[in-house]
Amino acid sequence: MLIMYDGTPFKGWQVQPNGVSIQQLLQEAIAVITKKNVHVIGSGRTDAGVHAIGQTANFKIGKELDLFRFLNSLNALTPDEITVKEIVKASNNFHARYSAIRKTYRYHVNLSRQLNPFERLYSWHFLERVDIALIKKAANSFIGTKDFSSFANESHAGSAAKNPVRTIYRLDVYEKEDQTLIFEVEADGFLYKMVRNIIGTIFCVGTGKMHLEELPGIFMAKNRSKAGAAAPPHGLFLFKVDY
Amino acid sequence: MLIMYDGTPFKGWQVQPNGVSIQQLLQEAIAVITKKNVHVIGSGRTDAGVHAIGQTANFKIGKELDLFRFLNSLNALTPDEITVKEIVKASNNFHARYSAIRKTYRYHVNLSRQLNPFERLYSWHFLERVDIALIKKAANSFIGTKDFSSFANESHAGSAAKNPVRTIYRLDVYEKEDQTLIFEVEADGFLYKMVRNIIGTIFCVGTGKMHLEELPGIFMAKNRSKAGAAAPPHGLFLFKVDY
Repeated sequence: MLIMYDGTPFKGWQVQPNGVSIQQLLQEAIAVITKKNVHVIGSGRTDAGVHAIGQTANFKIGKELDLFRFLNSLNALTPDEITVKEIVKASNNFHARYSAIRKTYRYHVNLSRQLNPFERLYSWHFLERVDIALIKKAANSFIGTKDFSSFANESHAGSAAKNPVRTIYRLDVYEKEDQTLIFEVEADGFLYKMVRNIIGTIFCVGTGKMHLEELPGIFMAKNRSKAGAAAPPHGLFLFKVDY
Repeated sequence: MLIMYDGTPFKGWQVQPNGVSIQQLLQEAIAVITKKNVHVIGSGRTDAGVHAIGQTANFKIGKELDLFRFLNSLNALTPDEITVKEIVKASNNFHARYSAIRKTYRYHVNLSRQLNPFERLYSWHFLERVDIALIKKAANSFIGTKDFSSFANESHAGSAAKNPVRTIYRLDVYEKEDQTLIFEVEADGFLYKMVRNIIGTIFCVGTGKMHLEELPGIFMAKNRSKAGAAAPPHGLFLFKVDY
């Protein structure tokens, strides 16, 4: 399944006791349609408030579905904030998370003094003065194969990733009209909160709170507390997952 | 004042007993800042759910204001759905409604089968099949100086406009990616619900419910019931007011 969602009202992708998750709503809708309880596997979790343009997920149902009707039923049974754009039959060994080879996130920042109300739920409204040339230089420092331990939070389960090395293929910065910056970052995978921690650190450099020259030391420290605070969730979009 | 708002949570521009209006929130905020009760005059009303990119309004306060501080206070005291973008001192005889010489509205329609969740509050999700060439021809039929009585509702006060003749300078149709149509209509003024009634009628033609050749007769009838039903409010944006 290829899924879009406005993350505003949800407690994130993953089923959890204290609030409504996207995974839960999909599983409940599938149960209503098929009379079967399935486990929907996402390409990865997104946190509360994070959006998706191209989340992917799979499930095993053990019978043939009329996919056109199933897609329409699924969208009728889920709230308007969630849209399943496409559904296709996958090979038996497909796994939305383990089969993914590459992911792209976007992060939106709005620098205008008076925030566009249509952006309020979809971008980080950043009011401090920033040096955009420095922002771009800082972004470039993250490209390549590196140990991203300093930019990864422990997951809720309390465990860090076994292998903290990831390869960022690109981290592009687009300047758009209305003082919006869009970051597009593509990697072979991301650690927990890695994008938001990277964006937060880039803005520490952009405002002069941190020097560009400090970044190599932060990587070497392998210590989350050395990098900047995470940027807020509502500027983040899971944009694309490649298989 | 130049004002943007996301109309979703409001009962429209105008102060009214049963719900929160944009006019009311601005007047309340101004009263907090200046300790004076003012009447905020908008360029025109927008209905419940209608948005604004460029609403304009004025008020008389009888004293000098520090406009930079006033603007920041106003935005701090109004909800995030409302943003006053600019405020300037106007001449004493300026009137946001009577001084306006031209207005532009936009109307967004999304034709995709599965609605983009980020568009759900900002476009009319139109699921029937439409002929876009016919839509464009129908749109052209509205351009010019005409009696728009058949496309005007009575206002809540129960009275029709004294003069139902308006001049539409342009009604452009843009086809955007993701199966979105954007209508941009510029006129010397608009009657009550005129844009939504025009858009609703254009879609009657586009789906074949009404023939293009019927439009002149609908104009001549000067009868609201002859034209199509109004398109929903949440696709409409007051885009620009010229003085």
